[in-house]
Amino acid sequence: MIKAGIIGATGYAGAELVRILLGHKEVEIKWYGSKSYIDEKYAKVYGNMFQLVEDTCLDDNIEELAKQVDVIFTATPQGFLAGVLTEEILEHTKVVDLSADYRLKDVAVYEKWYKIEHKSPQFIQEAVYGLCEINREKVKKARLVANPGCYTTCSILTAYPLIKEGLIEPGTLIVDAKSGTSGAGRGAKLPNLFCEVNENIKAYGVSTHRHTPEIEEQLSYAAEEPVTINFTPHLVPMNRGILATEYAALKKIKQADGSFLLPTYEQIKGAYDKYYKEEYFIRVLEQGVCPETKWVEGSNFVDIGFQIDARTGRIILMGAIDNLVKGAAGQAVQNMNLLFGFSEQEGLTLVPMFP
Amino acid sequence: MIKAGIIGATGYAGAELVRILLGHKEVEIKWYGSKSYIDEKYAKVYGNMFQLVEDTCLDDNIEELAKQVDVIFTATPQGFLAGVLTEEILEHTKVVDLSADYRLKDVAVYEKWYKIEHKSPQFIQEAVYGLCEINREKVKKARLVANPGCYTTCSILTAYPLIKEGLIEPGTLIVDAKSGTSGAGRGAKLPNLFCEVNENIKAYGVSTHRHTPEIEEQLSYAAEEPVTINFTPHLVPMNRGILATEYAALKKIKQADGSFLLPTYEQIKGAYDKYYKEEYFIRVLEQGVCPETKWVEGSNFVDIGFQIDARTGRIILMGAIDNLVKGAAGQAVQNMNLLFGFSEQEGLTLVPMFP
Amino acid sequence: MIKAGIIGATGYAGAELVRILLGHKEVEIKWYGSKSYIDEKYAKVYGNMFQLVEDTCLDDNIEELAKQVDVIFTATPQGFLAGVLTEEILEHTKVVDLSADYRLKDVAVYEKWYKIEHKSPQFIQEAVYGLCEINREKVKKARLVANPGCYTTCSILTAYPLIKEGLIEPGTLIVDAKSGTSGAGRGAKLPNLFCEVNENIKAYGVSTHRHTPEIEEQLSYAAEEPVTINFTPHLVPMNRGILATEYAALKKIKQADGSFLLPTYEQIKGAYDKYYKEEYFIRVLEQGVCPETKWVEGSNFVDIGFQIDARTGRIILMGAIDNLVKGAAGQAVQNMNLLFGFSEQEGLTLVPMFP
Amino acid sequence: MIKAGIIGATGYAGAELVRILLGHKEVEIKWYGSKSYIDEKYAKVYGNMFQLVEDTCLDDNIEELAKQVDVIFTATPQGFLAGVLTEEILEHTKVVDLSADYRLKDVAVYEKWYKIEHKSPQFIQEAVYGLCEINREKVKKARLVANPGCYTTCSILTAYPLIKEGLIEPGTLIVDAKSGTSGAGRGAKLPNLFCEVNENIKAYGVSTHRHTPEIEEQLSYAAEEPVTINFTPHLVPMNRGILATEYAALKKIKQADGSFLLPTYEQIKGAYDKYYKEEYFIRVLEQGVCPETKWVEGSNFVDIGFQIDARTGRIILMGAIDNLVKGAAGQAVQNMNLLFGFSEQEGLTLVPMFP
Repeated sequence: MIKAGIIGATGYAGAELVRILLGHKEVEIKWYGSKSYIDEKYAKVYGNMFQLVEDTCLDDNIEELAKQVDVIFTATPQGFLAGVLTEEILEHTKVVDLSADYRLKDVAVYEKWYKIEHKSPQFIQEAVYGLCEINREKVKKARLVANPGCYTTCSILTAYPLIKEGLIEPGTLIVDAKSGTSGAGRGAKLPNLFCEVNENIKAYGVSTHRHTPEIEEQLSYAAEEPVTINFTPHLVPMNRGILATEYAALKKIKQADGSFLLPTYEQIKGAYDKYYKEEYFIRVLEQGVCPETKWVEGSNFVDIGFQIDARTGRIILMGAIDNLVKGAAGQAVQNMNLLFGFSEQEGLTLVPMFP
Repeated sequence: MIKAGIIGATGYAGAELVRILLGHKEVEIKWYGSKSYIDEKYAKVYGNMFQLVEDTCLDDNIEELAKQVDVIFTATPQGFLAGVLTEEILEHTKVVDLSADYRLKDVAVYEKWYKIEHKSPQFIQEAVYGLCEINREKVKKARLVANPGCYTTCSILTAYPLIKEGLIEPGTLIVDAKSGTSGAGRGAKLPNLFCEVNENIKAYGVSTHRHTPEIEEQLSYAAEEPVTINFTPHLVPMNRGILATEYAALKKIKQADGSFLLPTYEQIKGAYDKYYKEEYFIRVLEQGVCPETKWVEGSNFVDIGFQIDARTGRIILMGAIDNLVKGAAGQAVQNMNLLFGFSEQEGLTLVPMFP
Repeated sequence: MIKAGIIGATGYAGAELVRILLGHKEVEIKWYGSKSYIDEKYAKVYGNMFQLVEDTCLDDNIEELAKQVDVIFTATPQGFLAGVLTEEILEHTKVVDLSADYRLKDVAVYEKWYKIEHKSPQFIQEAVYGLCEINREKVKKARLVANPGCYTTCSILTAYPLIKEGLIEPGTLIVDAKSGTSGAGRGAKLPNLFCEVNENIKAYGVSTHRHTPEIEEQLSYAAEEPVTINFTPHLVPMNRGILATEYAALKKIKQADGSFLLPTYEQIKGAYDKYYKEEYFIRVLEQGVCPETKWVEGSNFVDIGFQIDARTGRIILMGAIDNLVKGAAGQAVQNMNLLFGFSEQEGLTLVPMFP
Repeated sequence: MIKAGIIGATGYAGAELVRILLGHKEVEIKWYGSKSYIDEKYAKVYGNMFQLVEDTCLDDNIEELAKQVDVIFTATPQGFLAGVLTEEILEHTKVVDLSADYRLKDVAVYEKWYKIEHKSPQFIQEAVYGLCEINREKVKKARLVANPGCYTTCSILTAYPLIKEGLIEPGTLIVDAKSGTSGAGRGAKLPNLFCEVNENIKAYGVSTHRHTPEIEEQLSYAAEEPVTINFTPHLVPMNRGILATEYAALKKIKQADGSFLLPTYEQIKGAYDKYYKEEYFIRVLEQGVCPETKWVEGSNFVDIGFQIDARTGRIILMGAIDNLVKGAAGQAVQNMNLLFGFSEQEGLTLVPMFP
């Protein structure tokens, strides 16, 4: 039984960590950090936790926390962890950071897209990008895990095998993503009011969303060349779920007779199988089936479907996750499981809830 | 490890049974019965179950099923079980019926409100009304459990202690209930289309809803006198959840000096504590807190709040459940746990999902 | 063509006034008052108004405004108008107040329920309660109209004829009301966030909601005796609409033979017809039909249905309105039409939008 | 005052025609055709029309109807009109067809994508594609108008000026579209149930949706070369609205010094202004503003925004409409206005409803 602390426990991602960890056999939450609700009962902030969590919210004191727990989850705004992280903290405890502070290896890219100064770039190199299915072995040995963003988890995992296997032209990749509103956090802002979101859909952050360089960096590693993409997020009137619809030109494959043909369904499927066949949390759907966010709600699954369009020579990829689970808290727990040698699925065999 | 079969596994209540039983350590589902989807893969009918359920739907053959399993759940339309149940079936297996066939002790009342003939009234007397918190001991010894309706579970548990303790006038009880749309089932009917339900609220079945006599019968046992109520259900644009708002005149209590006073907050709270203090699944909220259906979503909890209105001499009670869990599949599993001597909470320590 | 000014034009009720007045042939909006958005283009605050409104928001300066326009709508927080209203303003212009400042005749009741001091009680007596169907003639002669609350409009109109005709026991009246979220306004508050409201229903303000005394006062006039009610509002995950479900004991009617019988359907319907037959905006539905909020969305209609329950001797009344139209801006325009002698329906023949 | 008949008046598009025509000064609806509800009162089928429409539904008899009215709207399934249209009908009346029967000039393309035989190809050549802003003059002289599809209206108008002016590479165009559920019609089908759609998003008809060839044909006329696109529709949990997010490579423009540069914001905006500056129903939003479907709800507007991404050399276009108005009934009325020489905006100055 290890001890965990959560900084930012009263945001939606923090609350989802609580929900998941309450069902985890190897972990006990010792610290519910929340700058906004210090000394308030956690169950007052989240009524669903009444009689399940008796603790009171504590200040976001990471130094103190580091001495008390085996792992710290930081579900905090960008810049928070970079501003307080020290070598001493990392000597005492492992850190899984749900913010973007250590996701990008190039600090200049971070500072350009996030428009804040990075206060502890010395830890960037050490940090492991916690996309478990891709970086599993590295995560196991890490002290500091940069938990991927919600859009990025979905966007990368959906395209990864095809880029890795050279089946699509990386430079043609376009990601049109749709997210439920919990991705916007629990801040009391006008655009997130019920009446503004409900019965409405819009794009936002077009060509400027911060998850763009994160997707590009990881896909560049896979492609072994720089990848530049278009990424457009949309706000959907639902609580949870991300659907990424991705478009790319297929690379024609040279045939025995010297001609070039588009990859077949079997070749694409084979690429997915090569990387994901043994992955419990990635479900490549049957031919012709389009993923639906509702099918993964509440679970750590990534559902993937695809369609080859011979008319245009493009492939359409579709990936679906629950943004708060595989896109945040679930993946963070998956990373924790790797860090501590627990079964990777412990606490995460959550059956999707439908309807 | 016992074996279970589900008849009507492709309705919403049946699917919720599957979701819950997949996380239950003592049960294996051996039979996914579905008249509409015979020979189809269950995971085709419910995409969320992809790679979690490999089984194919079977015919609704209860006689065959009874020989193969320890317990049968019937999540079927009214009249189905009454039409097929036999002594032989009950000798082979236990039955938890999620329909209304054995809930009402008076067959005439059943036939009047459901407008169908009851085909096997000989089992009505034996059947135990499976409201676990009230009838726990009887359920343990049963062969046939009549799992309560969704509205009734919520309505009864919210008022039960006050009626039992004589704190309210039973004849003044009015239940104004609001339900998510999954309560209407998965039938393809025009009134349940998205565009008909969304951005809309309406009452339906006013003064004629079939859960009325069920609530009345159970509350009459508690009151030890006949109770007649008004019950009005409403359809709310959400998937899950029932909120029952109940109104009743408080009985004035004779004081030492001969005067009469309304019961105090402490007296009401004391009544709830008397019956529910040890009940894991019933959460009586703190003073002044109104339950929200979202706080119990996906869980087997019943959340209860109340407010005394001294101006009118009435009390307003509010109860919230997830209609598919405590209102159907969760309670059915709770009954199964009692039937087989498992821990009552096994498979049901589901943390409510928020948001 | 008269000139109108709106103070509080950037709240939801203010914005609905703009929507309606843009389609009104006799009015021109000259002033878009908004404390929060001074000097911003109105169409920036409400994107739907792009190219329809070119004006810029102005300060909430009612004295200045009074000199420029024929009518002022105040869609402002409680206490605002009471704090600034003067005799001079009323000499220059008519005022339709969408706040509660002049709705209650007893200033003590106002101060008790609203917990603020009333700064200009001298205008309370003069103010006309603008429930057009009840107070039409008084409104025509008014300078200051107190536009009724959303819940109150719906609650009162639904019960009025039965109370007026003595068909129900006023003291038994219980109003269980359900409202869309626009009723909570456009303030950026956590409880109104999409993820908090969506997939959720709850009661709030139980036995303390400020519309209670307003309903009681108006129904007391109708009953010609003091009426005390229970009123419970609920928040529903939809943008617009109020449904009031009301319960009351029917008064038995003495028959020729001395016996007492419940009123019949025809007697109840007759009472509604007596008061509403000529009312364009009130639609008493056909027997057995329950109103749905979607059927009145975007319109100024009040839809009413009822059901007699002979088992309990009670009647269940149901009324539906669009809270932003008949519950706020539409009724305000209806009052303006009366004030200026326009056709009462001018600008308000809005066909409900479905779906 | 002309007379109009609607065949298919009880579908969502038909009902929206009724809503709009009730507010049109020059038209009277004489025929509410509905195969499913013959002899039922229209207001029973659509409760919102209570006391607004007193008519009863009639059989879908177009020959009889043609003799009685000046214009027929067919809001019917694909193949219906092609199966019944005759020269005689067109001699008696004008026809605005909301189905796809006469939208595609190449009957082979129609039969391939719709998988039905075209029964009256002799009228295809004569039919005018009723995208008013593009084909205004042709519509004025037509007898038979093929009212464009909802997705197509939005997709085409959003890209048209850039393709016409050669600012984008037509072969790179990708349309990722999102639609509210009313687009799926009022048929009682399982995938359209509230619980299946709510809290969910999915793509469907990927690379096979029937609106694809319609978009391609119209854009090919504009490009003066064959255009092949990717079109992916998505189902969004809302009643109304379509958002089309479109991606295309910008064509570099040769500069005075022989170098090539991407078009500037001003050049793109200039192209939109060239075609749409005088178009009342097309609103090109200010720089940096993304359209939201809620801003056009209930109205005939098309809102367009765009963003140049210099990093990828692509432009992202966004267009929003109300699928039932500009995407169906509103555009049909706009076509009717052109056919009969009414003001093009008559009946269509509907202010978008927010929230």
